[in-house]
Amino acid sequence: MEKQPLDLPEVAYTSDCRARVAFEVLANRWDPVVLFTLGETGPMRPRALITRIGGISPKVLNDALRRLEYNGLVERRPYAEAPPRVDYALTDAGQALLGPMGAMGAWAARYTDDVLAAQDRFETRTGSAP
Amino acid sequence: MEKQPLDLPEVAYTSDCRARVAFEVLANRWDPVVLFTLGETGPMRPRALITRIGGISPKVLNDALRRLEYNGLVERRPYAEAPPRVDYALTDAGQALLGPMGAMGAWAARYTDDVLAAQDRFETRTGSAP
Repeated sequence: MEKQPLDLPEVAYTSDCRARVAFEVLANRWDPVVLFTLGETGPMRPRALITRIGGISPKVLNDALRRLEYNGLVERRPYAEAPPRVDYALTDAGQALLGPMGAMGAWAARYTDDVLAAQDRFETRTGSAP
Repeated sequence: MEKQPLDLPEVAYTSDCRARVAFEVLANRWDPVVLFTLGETGPMRPRALITRIGGISPKVLNDALRRLEYNGLVERRPYAEAPPRVDYALTDAGQALLGPMGAMGAWAARYTDDVLAAQDRFETRTGSAP
């Protein structure tokens, strides 16, 4: 049985730790889905994204696109046409995030069953999800 | 200028898409930090985690540990001792998630400045964050 000291001198993370940004920019469940879809297809108009992503409402998509734009992962590109047209494209930062996201997806393919089984056990034991 | 069809026949994501699980299990900002800390140090007691992670409150840490346990990434291990003792250890699924998380961290090291600059531009232009 391992013993752990109660007080470690080194503070590993502070509130401005840069590595946190990677997780915060993808903290919403839909943002990675939208990002990955744009990586697969290239620039898309909102209506095309709605068609391609199952189960997303126009409002939820719009919120996701605004967050992705705010975080510099997606660029909003309006065109001076009649009727007005806009599409969304990945930025360099958004493009570079696809690889790490792919690694996350490979993990999910292997461990999703474990996750779902653990959730069932937790709910059976405690009577609720956290 | 690229043209995109408005209606794509293929629905890439449905609401039960398994790849989403990877992002959902880390949707809270603190959960990855706690997971990575346990990966660095091995099993730890809650008080040691609080010391090591800057800026986390006992309640926030407790909530994160419960979510991580619910998602099967962390195992809660009570010991029959007096006074009672408990520590937390990574599961296989949690251990396997460290690699993809490291790829995300490398992305953050390279692109965090871009993200912060984009956030400033967005707030300057729109007057608020999304």
